[in-house]
Amino acid sequence: MSKLRACILGATGVVGQHFIRILENHPMFEVVMVTASTHSSGMEYGNATDWTVSSTVPESVEHLKVTQTKLREILQQDIDLVFSALPSSVAFDIESELACGGLPIFSNAGSHRMDNDVPILIPEINPNHLELVKEQDYGNGFIVANSNCSTSGLVFGLKPLQHFGIKSVIVSTYQAISGAGRKGVSAMDILGNVIPFISNEEKKMALETKKILGDLNDGNVKPAPFEVNASCARVPVQDGHLESIVVNLEESVEIDDITDIMNNFTGEPQSLKLPTAPTNPIVVLSESDRPQPKRDLSIKKGDLGMTVKIGRLRKQGSQLNMFLLVNNTVRGAAGASVLNAEFALAKGVFH
Amino acid sequence: MSKLRACILGATGVVGQHFIRILENHPMFEVVMVTASTHSSGMEYGNATDWTVSSTVPESVEHLKVTQTKLREILQQDIDLVFSALPSSVAFDIESELACGGLPIFSNAGSHRMDNDVPILIPEINPNHLELVKEQDYGNGFIVANSNCSTSGLVFGLKPLQHFGIKSVIVSTYQAISGAGRKGVSAMDILGNVIPFISNEEKKMALETKKILGDLNDGNVKPAPFEVNASCARVPVQDGHLESIVVNLEESVEIDDITDIMNNFTGEPQSLKLPTAPTNPIVVLSESDRPQPKRDLSIKKGDLGMTVKIGRLRKQGSQLNMFLLVNNTVRGAAGASVLNAEFALAKGVFH
Amino acid sequence: MSKLRACILGATGVVGQHFIRILENHPMFEVVMVTASTHSSGMEYGNATDWTVSSTVPESVEHLKVTQTKLREILQQDIDLVFSALPSSVAFDIESELACGGLPIFSNAGSHRMDNDVPILIPEINPNHLELVKEQDYGNGFIVANSNCSTSGLVFGLKPLQHFGIKSVIVSTYQAISGAGRKGVSAMDILGNVIPFISNEEKKMALETKKILGDLNDGNVKPAPFEVNASCARVPVQDGHLESIVVNLEESVEIDDITDIMNNFTGEPQSLKLPTAPTNPIVVLSESDRPQPKRDLSIKKGDLGMTVKIGRLRKQGSQLNMFLLVNNTVRGAAGASVLNAEFALAKGVFH
Amino acid sequence: MSKLRACILGATGVVGQHFIRILENHPMFEVVMVTASTHSSGMEYGNATDWTVSSTVPESVEHLKVTQTKLREILQQDIDLVFSALPSSVAFDIESELACGGLPIFSNAGSHRMDNDVPILIPEINPNHLELVKEQDYGNGFIVANSNCSTSGLVFGLKPLQHFGIKSVIVSTYQAISGAGRKGVSAMDILGNVIPFISNEEKKMALETKKILGDLNDGNVKPAPFEVNASCARVPVQDGHLESIVVNLEESVEIDDITDIMNNFTGEPQSLKLPTAPTNPIVVLSESDRPQPKRDLSIKKGDLGMTVKIGRLRKQGSQLNMFLLVNNTVRGAAGASVLNAEFALAKGVFH
Repeated sequence: MSKLRACILGATGVVGQHFIRILENHPMFEVVMVTASTHSSGMEYGNATDWTVSSTVPESVEHLKVTQTKLREILQQDIDLVFSALPSSVAFDIESELACGGLPIFSNAGSHRMDNDVPILIPEINPNHLELVKEQDYGNGFIVANSNCSTSGLVFGLKPLQHFGIKSVIVSTYQAISGAGRKGVSAMDILGNVIPFISNEEKKMALETKKILGDLNDGNVKPAPFEVNASCARVPVQDGHLESIVVNLEESVEIDDITDIMNNFTGEPQSLKLPTAPTNPIVVLSESDRPQPKRDLSIKKGDLGMTVKIGRLRKQGSQLNMFLLVNNTVRGAAGASVLNAEFALAKGVFH
Repeated sequence: MSKLRACILGATGVVGQHFIRILENHPMFEVVMVTASTHSSGMEYGNATDWTVSSTVPESVEHLKVTQTKLREILQQDIDLVFSALPSSVAFDIESELACGGLPIFSNAGSHRMDNDVPILIPEINPNHLELVKEQDYGNGFIVANSNCSTSGLVFGLKPLQHFGIKSVIVSTYQAISGAGRKGVSAMDILGNVIPFISNEEKKMALETKKILGDLNDGNVKPAPFEVNASCARVPVQDGHLESIVVNLEESVEIDDITDIMNNFTGEPQSLKLPTAPTNPIVVLSESDRPQPKRDLSIKKGDLGMTVKIGRLRKQGSQLNMFLLVNNTVRGAAGASVLNAEFALAKGVFH
Repeated sequence: MSKLRACILGATGVVGQHFIRILENHPMFEVVMVTASTHSSGMEYGNATDWTVSSTVPESVEHLKVTQTKLREILQQDIDLVFSALPSSVAFDIESELACGGLPIFSNAGSHRMDNDVPILIPEINPNHLELVKEQDYGNGFIVANSNCSTSGLVFGLKPLQHFGIKSVIVSTYQAISGAGRKGVSAMDILGNVIPFISNEEKKMALETKKILGDLNDGNVKPAPFEVNASCARVPVQDGHLESIVVNLEESVEIDDITDIMNNFTGEPQSLKLPTAPTNPIVVLSESDRPQPKRDLSIKKGDLGMTVKIGRLRKQGSQLNMFLLVNNTVRGAAGASVLNAEFALAKGVFH
Repeated sequence: MSKLRACILGATGVVGQHFIRILENHPMFEVVMVTASTHSSGMEYGNATDWTVSSTVPESVEHLKVTQTKLREILQQDIDLVFSALPSSVAFDIESELACGGLPIFSNAGSHRMDNDVPILIPEINPNHLELVKEQDYGNGFIVANSNCSTSGLVFGLKPLQHFGIKSVIVSTYQAISGAGRKGVSAMDILGNVIPFISNEEKKMALETKKILGDLNDGNVKPAPFEVNASCARVPVQDGHLESIVVNLEESVEIDDITDIMNNFTGEPQSLKLPTAPTNPIVVLSESDRPQPKRDLSIKKGDLGMTVKIGRLRKQGSQLNMFLLVNNTVRGAAGASVLNAEFALAKGVFH
């Protein structure tokens, strides 16, 4: 089978770079088109981009001409699918239009996430939500979103606990600066500091988590019934969002049991052996002071950054506590979209 | 009145240095004796200490000879009170012995905090707990403890809420490296990282908070009845512990009311105009992204660091959320002990 | 004498804030006007500014209305002198126009520094250069520049050595992020990193140093004859530029002699007891690992940040090595301009 | 050919870990023995070590029993060569004794570097110095040292310039915290700071550079005749020593020529295609603000960290300036020793 031809929207930013890094030598998809804002268009990608996410720009993309992020330019090309790394402020219209144009859109932008007919898909967590795309009115095209970066970690901490009855969730975050993009946080603001505020992040964590863990019935997602109380803060860390999570459970569980359940947790991406699916979506660390962003973003060679790490599982009365670490630029962004595309392809939603 | 003569135990460490800094030009106390471990004894304080807490060692202390932290050496001197900046590992015995020797001990060490007859005193919060010293068997001497640094912030966030019925408390911390002492955290461990573990800290926060906010009856403190669930993490910040706090309340309260109550909160130290007492023990910041350790450790000139800052007060369903910042080396350590001594003196517990 | 009425151009940026901080309670000058770009004009200063340089905006300035940085608006006011904290890109024209309008301009901007008739004045170093203003064609008005922040340190390291014949100078810098302004360096770029490039900085250090240390003859400054080879790098430090300096000298000197000469170095600002003049412009630290930006920006209480610290003086063959620390936002920016104004006033250049 | 059996002395520290990481799947050597201090001996390596240098301990070493660093224990084993990651304080005697015991020692410790008969070998730079081992009196055994981490970078910047006549060298360093070992720098000291002092480092840089670039004649190394003036500082960077270098040359050279010479520089390790030899020992970066420690430690996939990066080559009068970046734990430590062993084996010095 020849590879499907992918276009990356917003390819020169940090998330766009991660898409290109992750798609290098991908067995199903190849990047044949990259778009960016006006001032880069016409340049070769390697020159247009201040590449920071790995040692060098992959050769296959280095000399691609950057196109403007415009409907006509994209539809003129022979494209099979689109990955969107656009900022939310500009993503809404162009993503809708491209879907109307017949293209499958796998988007990291927040714009369509809370649309009733757009799934926030995490294939290990809510694979059936993919069916929501049937409700969309985009013809052959459709939009699949992945979650906000913080949410992408939290739901892995909660999914294995849903069986025991989640009554409420309280989470405080320690979020890396890469989550704000290349120029998103100034050094004067964050060096030696913590900023206890990230715009809209707390609301997103609550709404997206409840949607992802909700039930799909008759083409509608009924949000999970428990409250999610989030407090979000930025810390001077390069990559990796750490989360301090407290879950009130209806049933009492033993830490050893939870540990086993988490370590053995798998889903359809693992059964389907999708290329970007980690062997273990969750790894529980046994050390007393882990996970740590600087040390635990990847556990073993070949770990792309799709595994969520959990540590310090402990009971405090009726509450279960843990610290959780998610690689915000991979599992929380570009890697999530790529896995969604692999999953949708495997399920025959497009081809 | 001539000043009372104070001895600082463990005077060369970070907390010891803060004691000396805060007691410079103090109207009631003067530092006449400084102790440290063997290898500094006999040296002048200025030479024995790698002073880091302000620009220079106060002149009045610079040339004091450092004494070993030994009972006999201390009792031989004409001392009126003792401040202890000792590490907990060595504090227990020597503090007891000095109290037996007739001296008032104001200790920042954790050793005696959970003794039934030792108050963890914060004069704005639990002034009546000072009476516990009557239960002690140390003759004329006695021991008054201040709380752990993280606890010293949390109780200011909770005290004004007790009136509305606290059902439970969940707190996640972002703690500064100065809380671990001069060599306590290695740069390799914390630079660009978060360490989600501080030994014993979570347990201390729960037990001390419940004791401080408990009721004193018949010479016993009955701990406050609510649960305190703490998760403690170290961040690459120099000074200032930030805390993300969620309180479940029995009664519904309005944010504006809570803000007023907090900003107007005062206690006996304010009535008594004690020198180390801040005008406002709590200040609520109105900006959307505050308090921040690097910016908010002191609010105005002359603020020693005794004011606790609170921001982002918000309701999430039945829960009240806030971020709180405490100056860990001042309100959470040396400043707390000095205020305790001022208060005990004003109340006539010693003279 | 009533205070002279000062206007701060570009008052909302970091340097502008430092001007306001330093001028609080100043005995000669009072801030009566503050200007900024269009989007702040009309607002109260306290609201227009994200104040970061001290705990709170001084009360005397907090409620001043911010004016646009426009000639007409400024000349309409009753102003005695102007401090410019403008970015160089906009400073050139407006500073010239205001000088033509009869106002004394004390500028931190780089725009006019290399003008033949504008002194780069550091009153301890080249007080006679103030006479250059007589060469200017601005009528009653004139422009006095202070140097670039890195230069402002270097010249203090060199001035006491000129007597021994400077053959050449080689300097490598470790510059703080505050030198680039509030949003000048992104956290992604500098956290855990060194950036070995600061635009135009190396050239400025060479040219400005040679001009400041040059001879004034017949209304012209003849640059100092030695070469200055500068390499400039940004490091993740908040405030304080550290410089590693190597000087080739014609005469051999002893370290003890140099130390004495430096510690005893004073100039006209000291004789005149100008309010912003430090008692000792240079302090040589004797510790083996100093000066350090985090510890040595101010040496004693009341040190505004105008003292340059030098350490690790040592000879390597015919070369003299040292590390030098300058407070870039004070001696290297706002404090320098204020001292220049004090000096010019004391010398009768304006009144 | 079966692999040679290697013992790592001081295997649990940071440098020891890098040895083990680099030797994983090495084609010539396999780690069969690991030693450490008393308190780890008897434990499995995976348990004895707080592994920080990559995601996980290589499986082949994880279960090796840690032995004490004692002569008898090591000689009892069937060992073909020894890599020493010992601290200098303990390395001198045990390395000598093991060499006397007939073993080839490739040492990262500084203890023997300045011995007359021990080469500081960098096979691209001074391959003939390997012959010095013939002068040693250790029987079949011998000692080969690699240089100090800062020196290992500097000599790559100088070697291609020797042809043009080096008159003198001035270098200022920006050194990473990993150079001081796991607990070598406390966070309180370095966070947001620069420490302008590293014990003995400046002297080492001068002496070792002159020895490495010196001439071997009749079994003696005559140090290179130029002066090396070094100023060493620690910065808050994890890995990678940056160096600001100024070279006075006798002949004038063009930047383009130097760039070509550096980019094309190779040596015997490249001709011999040794496994740890990089294709290009030196890479000149063309961007205006590089090299940077966080971005340029490895240039392409498969780059172990053995390539030295140079940028900002520029002439200032008769001086040539550059910034240079060396991976201090690889080219400056463990990787250097491994390359030395590969080279010595290829040259038949042992087998």
